[in-house]
Amino acid sequence: MSILVRGTAVVQRAEDGVVPHADVVIEGRRYEAILPSGGATEEFDRVVDGEGCLLVPGLVNAHTHLAMALFRGLARDLPLDRWLANEIWPRERKLTAKDVYWGSLLGLAEMIRGGTTAFADMYFFMDEVGRAVEEAGLRALLSYGIIAPTPERIEPELKRAEELVRTWEGAADGRIRTAFSPHAPLTCSADGWRRAAALARENRVPIHTHLAETEQEVERIRAETKHSPAEWLEELGVFSIPVIAAHCVHLSEKDIEILAAHGATAVHCPTSNLKLAAGIAPVQEMLRGGVNVALGTDGAASAGDLNMIEEMRLAALLAKHRARDPGALPPGEALRCATTRGAIALGLGKELGTIEPGRRADGVLVRMNGLHVCPGYDPLADLVYAAQGLDVEAVFVDGRPLLLKGEIQTLDVDEIKGRCRQLARRFR
Amino acid sequence: MSILVRGTAVVQRAEDGVVPHADVVIEGRRYEAILPSGGATEEFDRVVDGEGCLLVPGLVNAHTHLAMALFRGLARDLPLDRWLANEIWPRERKLTAKDVYWGSLLGLAEMIRGGTTAFADMYFFMDEVGRAVEEAGLRALLSYGIIAPTPERIEPELKRAEELVRTWEGAADGRIRTAFSPHAPLTCSADGWRRAAALARENRVPIHTHLAETEQEVERIRAETKHSPAEWLEELGVFSIPVIAAHCVHLSEKDIEILAAHGATAVHCPTSNLKLAAGIAPVQEMLRGGVNVALGTDGAASAGDLNMIEEMRLAALLAKHRARDPGALPPGEALRCATTRGAIALGLGKELGTIEPGRRADGVLVRMNGLHVCPGYDPLADLVYAAQGLDVEAVFVDGRPLLLKGEIQTLDVDEIKGRCRQLARRFR
Ligand SMILES: [Zn+2]
Ligand SMILES: [Zn+2]
Repeated sequence: MSILVRGTAVVQRAEDGVVPHADVVIEGRRYEAILPSGGATEEFDRVVDGEGCLLVPGLVNAHTHLAMALFRGLARDLPLDRWLANEIWPRERKLTAKDVYWGSLLGLAEMIRGGTTAFADMYFFMDEVGRAVEEAGLRALLSYGIIAPTPERIEPELKRAEELVRTWEGAADGRIRTAFSPHAPLTCSADGWRRAAALARENRVPIHTHLAETEQEVERIRAETKHSPAEWLEELGVFSIPVIAAHCVHLSEKDIEILAAHGATAVHCPTSNLKLAAGIAPVQEMLRGGVNVALGTDGAASAGDLNMIEEMRLAALLAKHRARDPGALPPGEALRCATTRGAIALGLGKELGTIEPGRRADGVLVRMNGLHVCPGYDPLADLVYAAQGLDVEAVFVDGRPLLLKGEIQTLDVDEIKGRCRQLARRFR
Repeated sequence: MSILVRGTAVVQRAEDGVVPHADVVIEGRRYEAILPSGGATEEFDRVVDGEGCLLVPGLVNAHTHLAMALFRGLARDLPLDRWLANEIWPRERKLTAKDVYWGSLLGLAEMIRGGTTAFADMYFFMDEVGRAVEEAGLRALLSYGIIAPTPERIEPELKRAEELVRTWEGAADGRIRTAFSPHAPLTCSADGWRRAAALARENRVPIHTHLAETEQEVERIRAETKHSPAEWLEELGVFSIPVIAAHCVHLSEKDIEILAAHGATAVHCPTSNLKLAAGIAPVQEMLRGGVNVALGTDGAASAGDLNMIEEMRLAALLAKHRARDPGALPPGEALRCATTRGAIALGLGKELGTIEPGRRADGVLVRMNGLHVCPGYDPLADLVYAAQGLDVEAVFVDGRPLLLKGEIQTLDVDEIKGRCRQLARRFR
């Protein structure tokens, strides 16, 4: 299929700013050309009107737990440990495959509506998540969350994790890729971590985990291992594999060096970190130290929603606060974290993250003619500081339109909402 | 005119939670009844379908500079002093009455679209702002920003400020009220402050000013006066008048006591404060200390937009971070700051801020059936943590619909956007 996005402003690479008027040509799964406005004269299977819009590379949500959208709004305003132990885990024990399927579809539909084109998900009943991703049309890095604090529990967990990789790696026309996910440094034994790392190496897939989310976690790990969380994973040899580490709120300078030296990605989840009072990650320090910093929402149960425009805004605002410097993380840098750096996190740095001929045609067309972005001196500033998720007009993944005129093309939104409301009754 | 909002969920008072299904009757300018769903059987001039929506009291933006919407996106990522001196003030010197009129209409339209029903504005060319408010239909507290650091400049400034009060107090059917606004503790001389306070007392209107926004400001005031900003204003007798103090980021315990003792309002502007790296205001401490804490956006040039739902969300998130307590400022409290406490700030605590028979019919109907607020266990949590400005469906002020089905009823939105884009060319 060939698509023309006509007369749109374009961010080809987040670091390069905005081309004010262009015709963007998609051929099959890839961008074919970015031409001066009016430059595309051939026939196309579909023409999308980009007038008053800004086309940006697809937003990458580099850390989430999709199906937790089913728990959105439950059990709010609690600290992480009590929230998990008293509210979330008891409900997760009641989750069925069906719940995860519909909860994932809800998360996927919400992500499409808000401009997310790719994401890294860690959860369980992952076959259901895979099925949902196939239908929705997004790009995903899926992993089973391995929880095995004691060695005897590791066997069945690794088996499940490996099964997911075997079943889903490369599925959905290559849109689905996989990872191994020991849940966090201490929720998996040292032996479990080593074996998970070996499996990741064997299967040539990355590790996706949680790292240094709260101060208490860091203290506990130090008490048990004499190391910081990052040091501990380095000690276990985990960083010889590409690592996606969610949160990274409490890092030492040495931790930052470790992440940078091994080319690991830190996924900044600003909303979730504030909402659970975990802290503010040292984004500026990590970027200066050479760490690849991506953005994520975490699950909607902790963050409230799966809105990547909002995460960009909050990341930009919090970086300024933390650095006491209004120049910290300007809009282009925040967008880079949500696009090119997210693509690198997913191991697709050469395929995704920019709008250039030959790249995969993942992109988001954002309406920029609302009152709240007028008069429009600086579309990047307006995108990051003022645009809303509902401004997203169209979404493409691999050249396929998942959203057009704000309407999801691949899923039955009303059915998803209805099913989720019904399933939610059991979790009140 | 009589209006029925049919079958909506309602927050009557932010502290009381949500009534899941009700018929809300507006008669003339006031709420007449809140009935069980299906309870309203008479004829109405207009019936608004509230199915799938949440009706909340009108949101009050207690500190803004409306016309600065014309500068949105300009000169970003600078510290407050340089941003003002190098970017904003030179442009403000070029502002004409016409710029302020259209810039104010832009801000007003954006506020209506996002659910704001009342606001406190401090700027200049205030006759233009007043005209714009008359047309838009919002409720406003208008003041002329007095800047007179040296005594000889005070005379014409006070005259302008007083003229505004004389001309506009009670205008637009009583929707417009006025205040005196010495811009900040040091941008007005001690004598100027005393005279402004005397005029406020004489005219029975409040004072609206900036207070303790940055650390540097606090230090400068201490160097010049040996007092904190709040102490200095107390020394000058300013707090004998109702005071609306924007920002209040850097307060001592004693400052909090001063604000509380005098019934002053602190206006928390979280986006602006982060964006200019000014800090995070001690909202929790102020509330505990008995201070009335309202919410504001500040001007769109500093905040990016005039989105009160976003300010509620950010206020709730930052309070948790600052207090290291996820229980700090739960959704109902954040909404209270944006409604009842905002109404108190404007001196209308008995007229506005709740949806109860006899109160002024200011209200916001928010669509709560989007993907991003599904499944909907807790509408207040969903409103604060997930809803977007564009979810606002209808807005009423004094029983008059300013927005219906997301469309502004009182202003020509396309003309406003076109004029503002045209005027903006001079400010690039
Ligand atoms: Zn997580
Ligand atoms: Zn201000």
